[in-house]
Amino acid sequence: MAQDGEFGLIARVTARLTAGPTCLLGPGDDAALVAAPDGRVVASTDVLVDGRHFRRDWGSGNDIGHRAAAANLADIAAMGAYPTALLVALCAPPDLDAAWAEELADGLSEEAESVGASVVGGDMSASPTLTIAVTALGDMHGLQPVLRSGARPGDVLAMAGRVGFAGAGYTVLSRGFRTPKLLVDAYRRPQVPYQQGPIANRLGATSMIDISDGLLADLGHIAKASRVAIDVHRDAFDLPDQMRDAATALGVDPYSWILGGGDDHALCATFPAGVALPAEWRQVGTVREGAGVTVDGDAWEGRLGWDHFKS
Amino acid sequence: MAQDGEFGLIARVTARLTAGPTCLLGPGDDAALVAAPDGRVVASTDVLVDGRHFRRDWGSGNDIGHRAAAANLADIAAMGAYPTALLVALCAPPDLDAAWAEELADGLSEEAESVGASVVGGDMSASPTLTIAVTALGDMHGLQPVLRSGARPGDVLAMAGRVGFAGAGYTVLSRGFRTPKLLVDAYRRPQVPYQQGPIANRLGATSMIDISDGLLADLGHIAKASRVAIDVHRDAFDLPDQMRDAATALGVDPYSWILGGGDDHALCATFPAGVALPAEWRQVGTVREGAGVTVDGDAWEGRLGWDHFKS
Repeated sequence: MAQDGEFGLIARVTARLTAGPTCLLGPGDDAALVAAPDGRVVASTDVLVDGRHFRRDWGSGNDIGHRAAAANLADIAAMGAYPTALLVALCAPPDLDAAWAEELADGLSEEAESVGASVVGGDMSASPTLTIAVTALGDMHGLQPVLRSGARPGDVLAMAGRVGFAGAGYTVLSRGFRTPKLLVDAYRRPQVPYQQGPIANRLGATSMIDISDGLLADLGHIAKASRVAIDVHRDAFDLPDQMRDAATALGVDPYSWILGGGDDHALCATFPAGVALPAEWRQVGTVREGAGVTVDGDAWEGRLGWDHFKS
Repeated sequence: MAQDGEFGLIARVTARLTAGPTCLLGPGDDAALVAAPDGRVVASTDVLVDGRHFRRDWGSGNDIGHRAAAANLADIAAMGAYPTALLVALCAPPDLDAAWAEELADGLSEEAESVGASVVGGDMSASPTLTIAVTALGDMHGLQPVLRSGARPGDVLAMAGRVGFAGAGYTVLSRGFRTPKLLVDAYRRPQVPYQQGPIANRLGATSMIDISDGLLADLGHIAKASRVAIDVHRDAFDLPDQMRDAATALGVDPYSWILGGGDDHALCATFPAGVALPAEWRQVGTVREGAGVTVDGDAWEGRLGWDHFKS
C-alpha cells in the first residue's frame, strides 16, 4: 500500500467501482454529485473498526465490504427510504495488501449495486488502525420518513429479515469454529431486507428501526422515542436446528442471540392494528401504553445488546 | 469516555449541536434528513487521523473540529456549491476526555454554522487511533458543478483565500515553536473563502479545486483532468513579513510553503480570459496548451505536496 501511495491506491480502488443510475458524478473530483429527486436527502454514517466491528481472519475483504455497506444501507431502508449512494473513508496500515482494499471496494460496490446504489466517493489515509467509515445517502421518493418516535399503543410490532443468526455466527467464530455455515455466513454477509423499508413506509408503518445493536436494545430506542411499552413474543422467532444445536454445543441460550444479538439488520416496524402485512413481515410483538421492552410480559435478564465502548 | 459508553457520549455531543435551516431531521434516528432543493446533492468525505492530519498538542479540540469541518466544506465550495450538512464518525481511545469530544463537536458545529450548514448525524466507536471521518453535503442551487476538467488554454488561473500560511504554521509547530501567531493560527483554523465557490461558479469558472494537498499538487489535478498546462506566477502570492522572517529563522524557502503547503483550503479556479474578477480573487497564473504545472515557466524543484501514505 505504501508502495502505491494514497493516490495510487485510490486509482486502483476507484477503477473497480461502477456508477449506478443515481450517480451523476463519481470519484475523481472534489466531491460527488448524486441524484436527490425528492428534494430531500437521507444520510447516515457508520464506522467499523478492525478488531471491534470486524476481524480480518473471520472473513474476506469482500465480506467486510458487504457488511460495512449493509450496516449503512440498512439505516436508509429503516427510514423507509431508497438508498442511492455510499461514500467510504478507509484508514489502513501502510502494510495492508492493496488487493485486500480492492476486495473491500468490490464488496462495498456489490452490496450497493444490489439496491441500485453505488460508491460515489471517499477518502483514504494511512493509520495504525484499519478503519472503515461509510456514509450512505438515500431518497424518500416523495414519502415521509418513518421515525423511531411514531409507535402508538395498540400497534403491532413486525419484523422483516432475520435476527440472531449473525450474533450466533459471531459466537461461533469467536470460539474458533467455522461452522455451521448458516450462522457464520450470516455474520459475514448479512441478508438485509432493504426493499421492505419503503414497503413498510407505504403500508403505513408508524415507526421503524434496523436491528444492529440487538433486538431488545434497538426496540428500546423505539419505546423511548415513542413513549410506549413494547412486548416481544418469543415464540414468534425462528429457532432453526443449526442455531439450536450450536447453542447446545456452546452452552449458550439461543434466545440471547435472538433477543440480544445484532448485525443481521432485520427491519422492525410498528403498524396500526389490522394492517395486512405482506409475507416478508411477521408479527413479533405488540405496543402498549407504558415504557420499556419486555419479553412475553417480563423483563429479559439476558444480554441486551452491544455497546461499542463497553464490549 | 468508557464511563459514558457510546450512547452516553453521543447524547452529550448531540446535545451541543444546533440544527440549521437545511437540517430537516437531525441526530437521533437511523438517518438524518437534509434539504436538497436542487434535486441533486453534492457529497464529499475526508478522514483525519491523529498524529497524521492533526496533533492534539498543537491545538484544542475546538480547533481540530474547525479544521475537520473546513477540509470537507471546502470540497463542497470547490464544486461551486453551497454546503448544507456534515456527518461525523468519531473513533476515539476509551481514555479520551469526553470534554475534548464536546469541544470537537463545538468546533465542527461552529464551522458548519458559519456557512449555514449543520452537523446532522454521525457515529462513534472506540478505537486505539483517534480518527475523525467527516462527510459534507451541499446543494447546487440550480447551478452546474465546476469540475477539475474544464480548464481551457487561454483561461486565467485565479485564487481566493490564502496559501502557504497553514503550511508555514505546520513547520513552526513541528519545530516546537508556538509563534508567529499568524501562521500557527492559520494552521489551527483555516480561513476558507467558502462563499467564493458559488461566486466563481456564477462568474463562469471553467474549473475549480480547493488547495488541500499543496498548490502545485492540486493544480496538477486540474492540469491532468483538463489536459492543459498551468503556469503559476510566483510574484502573484503574498509573502507577509511573518512568513519571510519565519522562513529565514527556520532555514526554509518560503515558496515551499506557498507552492507546496496544503491545509489553507484556498480556492483556485480557471476563468475565461477577460472575466472581471471580484476583489476576493487574484490572478495567479495562466492556462496553456500542454501538460503539467510550471512556476514562471520552469519546473519547480521543491516539495510538491502531501501524500498521506508517504509523508
